[in-house]
Amino acid sequence: MDNPGYRRGSFNSMQSGTSDEDMVEIAGATLDSSMTDDVLPLDRDVSRGHSTFNGEGLNGSSKMMDFLEEPIPGVGTYEDFNTIDWVREKSKDRDRHREIANKSKESTWALLQSVSDAFSGWLLMLLIGLMAGSLAGLIDISAHWMTDLKEGVCLSGFWFNHEHCCWTSNETTFIERDKCPQWRSWAELIVGQPDGAFAYIVNYLMYVIWALLFSFLAVSLVRSFAPYACGSGIPEIKTILSGFIIRGYLGKWTLVIKTITLVLAVSSGLSLGKEGPLVHVACCCGNILCHLFTKYSKNEAKRREVLSAAAAAGVSVAFGAPIGGVLFSLEEVSYYFPLKTLWRSFFAALVAAFTLRSINPFGNSRLVLFYVEFHAPWHLLELIPFIMLGIFGGLWGAFFIRTNIAWCRRRKTTKLGRYPVLEVLVVTAITAIIAFPNDYTRISTSELISELFNDCGLLDSSKLCDYINDNTTKTTDDRAAGPNVYTAMWQLALALIFKIFITIITFGMKVPSGLFIPSLAVGAIAGRLLGIGMEQLAYYHHDWVIFKGWCSPGADCITPGLYAMVGAAACLGGVTRMTVSLVVIMFELTGGLEYIVPLMAAAMTSKWVADAIGREGIYDAHIRLNGYPFLEAKEEFTHKTLAMDVMRPRRNDPPLTVLTQDGLKVEDVETLINETTYSGFPVVVSRESQRLVGFVLKRDLVISIENARKRQDGIVSSSDIYFTEHIPPQPPSSPATLKLRKVMDLSPFTVTDHTAMEIVVDIFRKLGLRQCLVTHNGRLLGIITKKDILKHMAQVVNQDPDSILFN
Amino acid sequence: MDNPGYRRGSFNSMQSGTSDEDMVEIAGATLDSSMTDDVLPLDRDVSRGHSTFNGEGLNGSSKMMDFLEEPIPGVGTYEDFNTIDWVREKSKDRDRHREIANKSKESTWALLQSVSDAFSGWLLMLLIGLMAGSLAGLIDISAHWMTDLKEGVCLSGFWFNHEHCCWTSNETTFIERDKCPQWRSWAELIVGQPDGAFAYIVNYLMYVIWALLFSFLAVSLVRSFAPYACGSGIPEIKTILSGFIIRGYLGKWTLVIKTITLVLAVSSGLSLGKEGPLVHVACCCGNILCHLFTKYSKNEAKRREVLSAAAAAGVSVAFGAPIGGVLFSLEEVSYYFPLKTLWRSFFAALVAAFTLRSINPFGNSRLVLFYVEFHAPWHLLELIPFIMLGIFGGLWGAFFIRTNIAWCRRRKTTKLGRYPVLEVLVVTAITAIIAFPNDYTRISTSELISELFNDCGLLDSSKLCDYINDNTTKTTDDRAAGPNVYTAMWQLALALIFKIFITIITFGMKVPSGLFIPSLAVGAIAGRLLGIGMEQLAYYHHDWVIFKGWCSPGADCITPGLYAMVGAAACLGGVTRMTVSLVVIMFELTGGLEYIVPLMAAAMTSKWVADAIGREGIYDAHIRLNGYPFLEAKEEFTHKTLAMDVMRPRRNDPPLTVLTQDGLKVEDVETLINETTYSGFPVVVSRESQRLVGFVLKRDLVISIENARKRQDGIVSSSDIYFTEHIPPQPPSSPATLKLRKVMDLSPFTVTDHTAMEIVVDIFRKLGLRQCLVTHNGRLLGIITKKDILKHMAQVVNQDPDSILFN
Repeated sequence: MDNPGYRRGSFNSMQSGTSDEDMVEIAGATLDSSMTDDVLPLDRDVSRGHSTFNGEGLNGSSKMMDFLEEPIPGVGTYEDFNTIDWVREKSKDRDRHREIANKSKESTWALLQSVSDAFSGWLLMLLIGLMAGSLAGLIDISAHWMTDLKEGVCLSGFWFNHEHCCWTSNETTFIERDKCPQWRSWAELIVGQPDGAFAYIVNYLMYVIWALLFSFLAVSLVRSFAPYACGSGIPEIKTILSGFIIRGYLGKWTLVIKTITLVLAVSSGLSLGKEGPLVHVACCCGNILCHLFTKYSKNEAKRREVLSAAAAAGVSVAFGAPIGGVLFSLEEVSYYFPLKTLWRSFFAALVAAFTLRSINPFGNSRLVLFYVEFHAPWHLLELIPFIMLGIFGGLWGAFFIRTNIAWCRRRKTTKLGRYPVLEVLVVTAITAIIAFPNDYTRISTSELISELFNDCGLLDSSKLCDYINDNTTKTTDDRAAGPNVYTAMWQLALALIFKIFITIITFGMKVPSGLFIPSLAVGAIAGRLLGIGMEQLAYYHHDWVIFKGWCSPGADCITPGLYAMVGAAACLGGVTRMTVSLVVIMFELTGGLEYIVPLMAAAMTSKWVADAIGREGIYDAHIRLNGYPFLEAKEEFTHKTLAMDVMRPRRNDPPLTVLTQDGLKVEDVETLINETTYSGFPVVVSRESQRLVGFVLKRDLVISIENARKRQDGIVSSSDIYFTEHIPPQPPSSPATLKLRKVMDLSPFTVTDHTAMEIVVDIFRKLGLRQCLVTHNGRLLGIITKKDILKHMAQVVNQDPDSILFN
Repeated sequence: MDNPGYRRGSFNSMQSGTSDEDMVEIAGATLDSSMTDDVLPLDRDVSRGHSTFNGEGLNGSSKMMDFLEEPIPGVGTYEDFNTIDWVREKSKDRDRHREIANKSKESTWALLQSVSDAFSGWLLMLLIGLMAGSLAGLIDISAHWMTDLKEGVCLSGFWFNHEHCCWTSNETTFIERDKCPQWRSWAELIVGQPDGAFAYIVNYLMYVIWALLFSFLAVSLVRSFAPYACGSGIPEIKTILSGFIIRGYLGKWTLVIKTITLVLAVSSGLSLGKEGPLVHVACCCGNILCHLFTKYSKNEAKRREVLSAAAAAGVSVAFGAPIGGVLFSLEEVSYYFPLKTLWRSFFAALVAAFTLRSINPFGNSRLVLFYVEFHAPWHLLELIPFIMLGIFGGLWGAFFIRTNIAWCRRRKTTKLGRYPVLEVLVVTAITAIIAFPNDYTRISTSELISELFNDCGLLDSSKLCDYINDNTTKTTDDRAAGPNVYTAMWQLALALIFKIFITIITFGMKVPSGLFIPSLAVGAIAGRLLGIGMEQLAYYHHDWVIFKGWCSPGADCITPGLYAMVGAAACLGGVTRMTVSLVVIMFELTGGLEYIVPLMAAAMTSKWVADAIGREGIYDAHIRLNGYPFLEAKEEFTHKTLAMDVMRPRRNDPPLTVLTQDGLKVEDVETLINETTYSGFPVVVSRESQRLVGFVLKRDLVISIENARKRQDGIVSSSDIYFTEHIPPQPPSSPATLKLRKVMDLSPFTVTDHTAMEIVVDIFRKLGLRQCLVTHNGRLLGIITKKDILKHMAQVVNQDPDSILFN
């Protein structure tokens, strides 16, 4: 538990805070509603307002003699599964900054502190970059080694992977590398037979056994030590960045377990990638490193700026694309992204990328995951197949989201969800058994994508490059495909179908699993198939009108690798609905502006097609599935409702529970606190006028009353409570009065009842509010919380409003 | 005049709208305060609130029988030099969108319309990209030709530039290209002498004469036809994008004249660039093309989204850097930049870049302005000189901003400003006379930068590449500098001093002038000088500790071109305070991630150094100089004032002028309108309670009363005006009542008097408000407008609050 203030509350409702040990299964989404109600006492109605205590200092009139001179401990922190108040957090940070700036004029030491404070953000970014880069390198190296371990072992040292093992024999191309003497397959090692049916079966068995072992380890570790380590983590990170609190989600245990299990999961051959989880890992690094600087550890808003940058660093190391990473963080993940953060994110992303490169996990000094170099330009007419790939990507994306969400919902609601270990083992077994016989599914998915993106050179020994050379041309293009190419196409088609279906049931299991690589693989296979088709069509039909002029015999006209790349972009776009960041990541892979136009055409088409079928990307769909309170900034609220339709109390409900600024006794307030579940109360001038004075949080009330009862003489149940500035003279016989103006927020946000909801939603989004009071002609009428808005938004699109679980 | 509603007002204050013909000299900033008061009747107090009329429809209760069934013409438009209300504009667009979406279910035709509406944004982006790219190509070609015209003419056709002219002779390298027989210098042509002192003088004279002619034409055209065409335009575009209206600033005349005069100004050899003005040109294209689609032409907020994208397209064609352009628009220019706009901007930027490339103005199929390819990697120790360049860049940036602003202020306040033509001619003459004798200032600045960035090859004939070849090494590196290099260094040093001082007085003159190229040139010269120095140091002192290990003899260790590039980035960063966009633009020039780290180090240092001296970039400084109402989104408001300190009426002023919801006669309201200068009034329940009901604009009141007097029977001066929902029964003898609830904004924004100003500023920025009402305990107390905030912000930093001219 981070803050000691949690357990201070004297009333029963304060006692049920969630601790790390409770381990609510967020990502697994097994929260049923009864459990939620137990765990989250504050999920009804408002919780916390923004208290701008700083508002007091300047105007001398409001300086009160008060027993609360020092800030009350516990105020300003949040409970688990609650939304932060951005306005308050930013105010707090500005106060802190002002204080340091004022002090800095006093002494050199304070000036140095102020300078170090200013640079602490950069230092933090540097550390995040170094840590994220190193971890990514570690993960790459381990996953590479363990993936190869499924096939065999190196005699010169079991810690070498296949490629390193064969370093000396110089035959590291795709097919030929099997011929390295140091590297022994399991069949060779166990039964001494390098070939034959029996050896094949032994290899097959060992492959399946290793896969099962890895995935069993992965799921067991996740289950036992860090349930938050499962999944890709991006939906949760999006929610956290929007201001939600999930304690432990970015903690050190999650980091350790996610790093280990990610390697295991990737090595087990499941249809998942490490890119999404790397974002989670980087965010864990960011969150942990925040503890080094109080500026970031004590302020939830500042911490989220750091997490945005960490997310950028995560994508940067995942693809070796720093600019793409920053844009991904901006476009897809972040909620509040000031320009200062953009610049810092870029720095963190660069440091991470260069750290990874100096570790050099791929052994080729390349920064990017899939390095591609194409030689031929593309023709304008090729936009037609590229757009077709875009349509395919959009359809696949929409199909994937629907089926995956349906499957995940089934997992939540049926018995399936109760046996996560069994589920993982069964899926691993199916994957391994189907994958082994097919060359293109046996290798790791990133190797597959790499090969598909590759432009065939003359010396390439891959089956995909088995073109018939008539020895007259020395170019690599415009050749007839050999028989191996056709075999490869069959195998690829089977691999495509397999990948499509296995990914649907894989994503969402209780192991770390990213979506980028499987989506890219599906698209790359489809693209390569179409590319080879186009190429052969052009070869055999040079005289067709569409090929005339640019596909003359011997000319360099169609690059199947480019089609694979475009297809990959389209599929990834269809699933995630990324736009600019997708194109920029892909651009950074090729490094040439030349191919941006095909990528853009495919990404645009894919997004349009997918959006026409369903508006949500996979991450948003998972956020909704889990009922997180996420107010999507991209989606416009288009309904014509007014604030009065959404606010509570509803038309026939009893009026809003309010406090009056005077005339209340301590016991009245205590009764109110005990009898209601609201976590905050508006304060009005009088019940008759209903004119709003301020807003006070239940927790602050509780703590202040308790404090006063303990420390201040004469505070009893019949003491008067005043929220006013000046207290009328009391008769000497009456008990001491309790002044609580200081714990009241004097500047609550208000809107009128006639305000259109689209404006209210805008205000909530842009200012990061938790609640807003509704007035009519200057009288307080009701209250709207973030949860009310989300419920309302669910209602207007005919969804279940109770799917929103948290506040 | 765009809207006919302007002249409808019956009261005198409505008659003084500004028309295009008035041509207030904004960019020239010769607005004195008396003039401002005449032109801008609404610059005191509030003008316009946001009217969410749509709020009415849903709740049946508020459906009134009203004489105003159709929307009143003239409502919802803005006057010149006023700020728009983003909330209202966005509401309007959502209404429009809702209407189209509802209709689309009715018929196929309406569905088609809805689809075409959805795609009109993309079509618009396509058109902007095409137009901006074409214009940029045109400008490049013309400027190239006219620059060469100063030196000579082509005999095979006067319309050829030097390079095209010598196309056949194949000697297009920098020095040798003078030897082409078709190309005649003016001396050869006029006096028949290719060499000698006399020929030199003739060439010199012709150079100066052409320069004077070009600049005279440029300044005359600007003065006579489009005063808005002068300057870089970026400060004004920033202001416009933040919601200000300057009619004609992005009009067709400005476009035509700016395009022509930009070519003239660049060709005249003045120390200015075409990059900033290209952004203005692209924004003009965007604005003009908006007229094709009512969706964009009728909505100021939507139009600004288009302008943001157009700005991206402008930078994209200026540097051939589409991603950098988008980031520039995001970071530097735009105010409201939703993600949808990011994606569209990227599209527009790409289309523009590819249009430019297909025009191929440089004749080398290159997209980028300065194509650079470096061969040697850089060493970690080189970060020290790179950071030194960063410091230089920061110092130069801060120095430039201070002196340039001081000079511009002098131009505004002294006689200097009265003779803009003379000023331009004198500066041109000085520039031409000093520039001609020095090889490095005679050529166009972009050629100079190109040469400085260049990595010396073995065959380079440039003086800067005159290294001593000892014939033993075949590499280009680690050679002693020849005598020509030292001459070049002297000339470059002189050029540096010249550029530094001439740019200060050039930027801000009455011709189109960009800052990018001169800043880049200053940095590139400084960088190249340092680079050559380092290189020779390393050559002669291989054994020094710092060079040991990476600068062994014959090794490839220091690339002076890279230093030039880093220096250029540092200087541009110091002047404009760009960060990510700067690095990305530079990255797109080289295309390799390798050199991002040096660029980043220099850009970071430069920004820190410059920020330590003065917070503002050049564009913000010019915005402040001209008194535009620009609420900087990057700068934090750090003072501890409260809303009550900023609101009006001030402490001892008479109370706020308000209307009551009932009990007012038509004549009372008319008197109030005539006697005050406010452009809007809050409506309260009663004077005693001061409970806020809504906010009504003066113009709406005026139009409605006039309308009613004309069309509705029985409306006389003694008629009652009601803002209430229901009207009490009237005695039969009384005159007809006037119901005005419909023109009242029922959801004005309010804050309490205790709200910290930092929060108020945040609300204004993020929601794009024009004014906000201040309440205390539910009673209306005062009002805060955008201008009040800007004045207050000027005050707290001890600036003249009256420097804020507009509202």
